[in-house]
Amino acid sequence: MKAWEANVRKVIPYTPGEQPNRPGMIKLNTNENPYPPAPGVLKALEELDTDRLRLYPDPAASELVNALAEYYRKDPSCFFVGVGSDDVIAMAFQTFFNSEKPILFPDISYSFYSVWADLFGIRYRRPALDEDFRIVKEDYFKENGGIIFPNPNAPTGIYMELDQVEEIIAKNQDSIVIVDEAYVDFAGPSALELVDRYENLLVVQTFSKSRSLAGMRIGFAVGQPQLIKYLNDVKYSFNSYTMNLPSLKLGAAAVKDEAYFRETVGKIVSTRERVKKELSKLGFAFPDSQSNFIFATHKEWPAKELFEELKKEDIYVRYFASPRIDNYLRITVGTDEEMDALLAFLKKKGN
Amino acid sequence: MKAWEANVRKVIPYTPGEQPNRPGMIKLNTNENPYPPAPGVLKALEELDTDRLRLYPDPAASELVNALAEYYRKDPSCFFVGVGSDDVIAMAFQTFFNSEKPILFPDISYSFYSVWADLFGIRYRRPALDEDFRIVKEDYFKENGGIIFPNPNAPTGIYMELDQVEEIIAKNQDSIVIVDEAYVDFAGPSALELVDRYENLLVVQTFSKSRSLAGMRIGFAVGQPQLIKYLNDVKYSFNSYTMNLPSLKLGAAAVKDEAYFRETVGKIVSTRERVKKELSKLGFAFPDSQSNFIFATHKEWPAKELFEELKKEDIYVRYFASPRIDNYLRITVGTDEEMDALLAFLKKKGN
Repeated sequence: MKAWEANVRKVIPYTPGEQPNRPGMIKLNTNENPYPPAPGVLKALEELDTDRLRLYPDPAASELVNALAEYYRKDPSCFFVGVGSDDVIAMAFQTFFNSEKPILFPDISYSFYSVWADLFGIRYRRPALDEDFRIVKEDYFKENGGIIFPNPNAPTGIYMELDQVEEIIAKNQDSIVIVDEAYVDFAGPSALELVDRYENLLVVQTFSKSRSLAGMRIGFAVGQPQLIKYLNDVKYSFNSYTMNLPSLKLGAAAVKDEAYFRETVGKIVSTRERVKKELSKLGFAFPDSQSNFIFATHKEWPAKELFEELKKEDIYVRYFASPRIDNYLRITVGTDEEMDALLAFLKKKGN
Repeated sequence: MKAWEANVRKVIPYTPGEQPNRPGMIKLNTNENPYPPAPGVLKALEELDTDRLRLYPDPAASELVNALAEYYRKDPSCFFVGVGSDDVIAMAFQTFFNSEKPILFPDISYSFYSVWADLFGIRYRRPALDEDFRIVKEDYFKENGGIIFPNPNAPTGIYMELDQVEEIIAKNQDSIVIVDEAYVDFAGPSALELVDRYENLLVVQTFSKSRSLAGMRIGFAVGQPQLIKYLNDVKYSFNSYTMNLPSLKLGAAAVKDEAYFRETVGKIVSTRERVKKELSKLGFAFPDSQSNFIFATHKEWPAKELFEELKKEDIYVRYFASPRIDNYLRITVGTDEEMDALLAFLKKKGN
């Protein structure tokens, strides 16, 4: 090892999910939205003034923050925006999780939580989901340096009712509790309605799923102004201008088109419920997903083999070679046509 | 203080420079390029497929990396891209500056170096520039945990000849040396030509100045593949997808238009040289800037007063209330028309 290498931060390299992009392929592996962004997004792109790109963007991201504040009927000082919810959560880890006590998150959950904790040197414990893959709320009533969990959880898709979420927040008022709601628009009510009552709550959402803008990298956090200020202090010490001009303009346009948002989310939910029934008939079992994916296991077909077979058909789903879930596939809910192609293959295989 | 606040990372909030944006104002305060981006950037924007925005962007940012590799005639494995050079340098601090020994950077330099060091808990020492505001290379021949300096330096604008830069790199082969070349396109040769010879060298550049794309947030680092791999390992542990689709497409388009790039950089350099002569006649003194700004002090007019007077005329320049430089103004080189308006005001004041 060279001398300079002694000072290098060594991490286990994280490999992003496959992002193949071939015409005709069916991409059900990264929980993207099968429908294009709202029509207003195209209009905002057409109206974008390229001459303006020579100037720095607004560091406060006001246009986007104000659009969110108006949509969610809260003060702009309650919003923090970042380069996808990954950027937002990474900043929140750096800002709020500076304790000697371990932070808590479920053993089966978003795979990045442990990656961030390792990167920033944060201790953590991972209480196990129960045998039905449910979060056991009592596991989070123990001393901790912070809490984070997705709701609905990923990759299970299970939504925790808001009274249980509130119990976790209420019993941990000495810690920051982050509720990662990447998929909440496909599920029940958001913890956003609890923000005014709990100063220790940070709710994180993303434009990558329900708003069809994974390619724009926009995420946001909602909390009481003091929490948002702490987050912005760290963010401004890292990079003043994280959101480029197109993300401010296109993001604001996406928020403003509520009708399109409701329509596309509604279509995905209705496709999901139909596909659940079909998968049941085909011998699959799965938690009752309230997100835009289904986490399914088959009584006879090993998940890894099925994953490979589907790949040969140009149908991409996600397989995790991790304890407890290595016989499951996470299948993103695509268009009806895409799901019919998947179901047709599975039916043929079953005959 | 609430219990949860004990675990909050406390930083001295950094205040980004003023970004007023009113019609008719003359904005010479943040070293932006006065000319619009290359024509190819507009074309790339027009051709951007909004439907594609529903999908995640390429985490490897290949389109942009390949354009840079082709332009600079190096292997793509030598390039790292980020959300402006601030993002790139912040990642480099986290990746390479994990030593108990202090890192070194000049006392008068880019103000963010100490902000990042404080944020990440990195010790640092700041050797003083000499009385002519030059970096004293011998100050960097001492034991250290890493080195960073801008070339040309900011806010002085002074370019250090490449043989001296090389000496600093060569004498510090146990440390990573980051040469921050945000302004190098307006100056002499880049340290890029040293990358093949020094595995401890990381050169950082940006699209915000010479490529007229401050609003897109694009920066990059060039180094030997092992260094870039370490940087990517940390980056992928932070956020897999930092570069959104427009930044990949528009960034690549900007790199490809070499003729426009040379033309606009040439215009700025020629305006700079003319304005230097005029400022001299008006009683200003300044280091011989090789960047797109001039760091000037007047023999009679206190800088802070002049700063306020210019502001009243809707001419914005930058004033730093910092030791040694609190009687200087950093004046960005704008168009000839903008600089003539500034000079006209100064001439009137002098009569």
